[in-house]
Amino acid sequence: MEVQIAVAKVNKYATSESGDTLEVVERPNGGLSVVLADGQTSGRGAKAISLAVVRKVIGLLAEGVRDGAAARAASDALFTDRQGKVISTLNIASVDLSSRTIVLTRNNPAPIFICRGEEIDCLDQESIPLGTSLNIRPVITEIGIEPGLVIVIYTDGVIHAGKRRGLPMDVAATLRSILEDQDPGPQTLADILLAQAVSLDENRPADDISVLVLKVTSRVGDNVRRMSVRLPIEGFGK
Amino acid sequence: MEVQIAVAKVNKYATSESGDTLEVVERPNGGLSVVLADGQTSGRGAKAISLAVVRKVIGLLAEGVRDGAAARAASDALFTDRQGKVISTLNIASVDLSSRTIVLTRNNPAPIFICRGEEIDCLDQESIPLGTSLNIRPVITEIGIEPGLVIVIYTDGVIHAGKRRGLPMDVAATLRSILEDQDPGPQTLADILLAQAVSLDENRPADDISVLVLKVTSRVGDNVRRMSVRLPIEGFGK
Repeated sequence: MEVQIAVAKVNKYATSESGDTLEVVERPNGGLSVVLADGQTSGRGAKAISLAVVRKVIGLLAEGVRDGAAARAASDALFTDRQGKVISTLNIASVDLSSRTIVLTRNNPAPIFICRGEEIDCLDQESIPLGTSLNIRPVITEIGIEPGLVIVIYTDGVIHAGKRRGLPMDVAATLRSILEDQDPGPQTLADILLAQAVSLDENRPADDISVLVLKVTSRVGDNVRRMSVRLPIEGFGK
Repeated sequence: MEVQIAVAKVNKYATSESGDTLEVVERPNGGLSVVLADGQTSGRGAKAISLAVVRKVIGLLAEGVRDGAAARAASDALFTDRQGKVISTLNIASVDLSSRTIVLTRNNPAPIFICRGEEIDCLDQESIPLGTSLNIRPVITEIGIEPGLVIVIYTDGVIHAGKRRGLPMDVAATLRSILEDQDPGPQTLADILLAQAVSLDENRPADDISVLVLKVTSRVGDNVRRMSVRLPIEGFGK
């Protein structure tokens, strides 16, 4: 089997810093974790918050702290630092090779979609962001790693997309239409969802938008781990 | 323009943990850094060392510490912790959007290749690994970001490849033959170099091998940052 992870990420229109921070780290007992935080507001202040949350979580995961405990610690630290005045959403998606599961940790009102074939489940239990009070509880979902599994996670930029025109995005419907027709790779899926959100915002995103897609395939390959990053650079030569 | 980064990474034959650790982090003043460390020996002990080095460097970069200072600090910390008995190589490749340069920091006897069109330069000044003594000096190279630039970095698994059969790899010749014929993407380039090293080891890598390729293209795109990760999972269902 192979776990494939893809991310597509765009800044709020006319801002150079994204309030969304995403990082991938290796887990000390095998596997990896993707950590995605969205700091309140946008621009430089939001970036500092989401970076601090992601660093805190990554540092704890690296020490072998469990995902839920890392999320709680990051929340308490943010609350203590900012007295509840600043909040941040957090999603952790871990491929845990010791438990052989995918562990999803969510402190984010935005739902997570779990797809198996054409069956699409929406994880939308109430979930509040980090930093609102002490002892915030993350919503944790653990799923066996099996071929065909597709998991879709996003920040609230997707939820806000199109809202100023009264045309919010129906993520479930979009997912259904894509998954019915094709067996898309995770990057294609992330790109399509992001492109739709940006298009609903008339190509001027009202917020930072990040889409994370995790897919398990039955591919039997060469045991090579691969990673690629593409970073567009604006305004060069001006 | 777009900076594209690709990594291909394989474990030493019959080991489940790689002594090579690679992580990508956002820089607080814009851009990103790729941090690659190779801990002495292989397996679990080496993993712990390279993970600790990468964490230390990432934590400092996140605070805005400059790359060279982060490398020195990681070296001093390793030396203090292990009294010079354990060493680790380190490469940092940073896309620094504030200076608009690529900054290469190297504490690794393995060279770095810088390619522009068919011109291939080898950065092979003497460079020693972290942890050998206090106050280790990294070799730092700063290059303007310009389309066509290709940078190739690897761990010593590439250098050891084929040696037990007296058939060491000629990375420069391989690069020349690939770059003369095609304009390959960075993932293709990393995959070809890794495949050649693995093949010289008769498909049983004598060491962990990591290849990192950074390429600057003139692509004018959609301002979307993209990342993808592929993690093969062995031994499931056994």
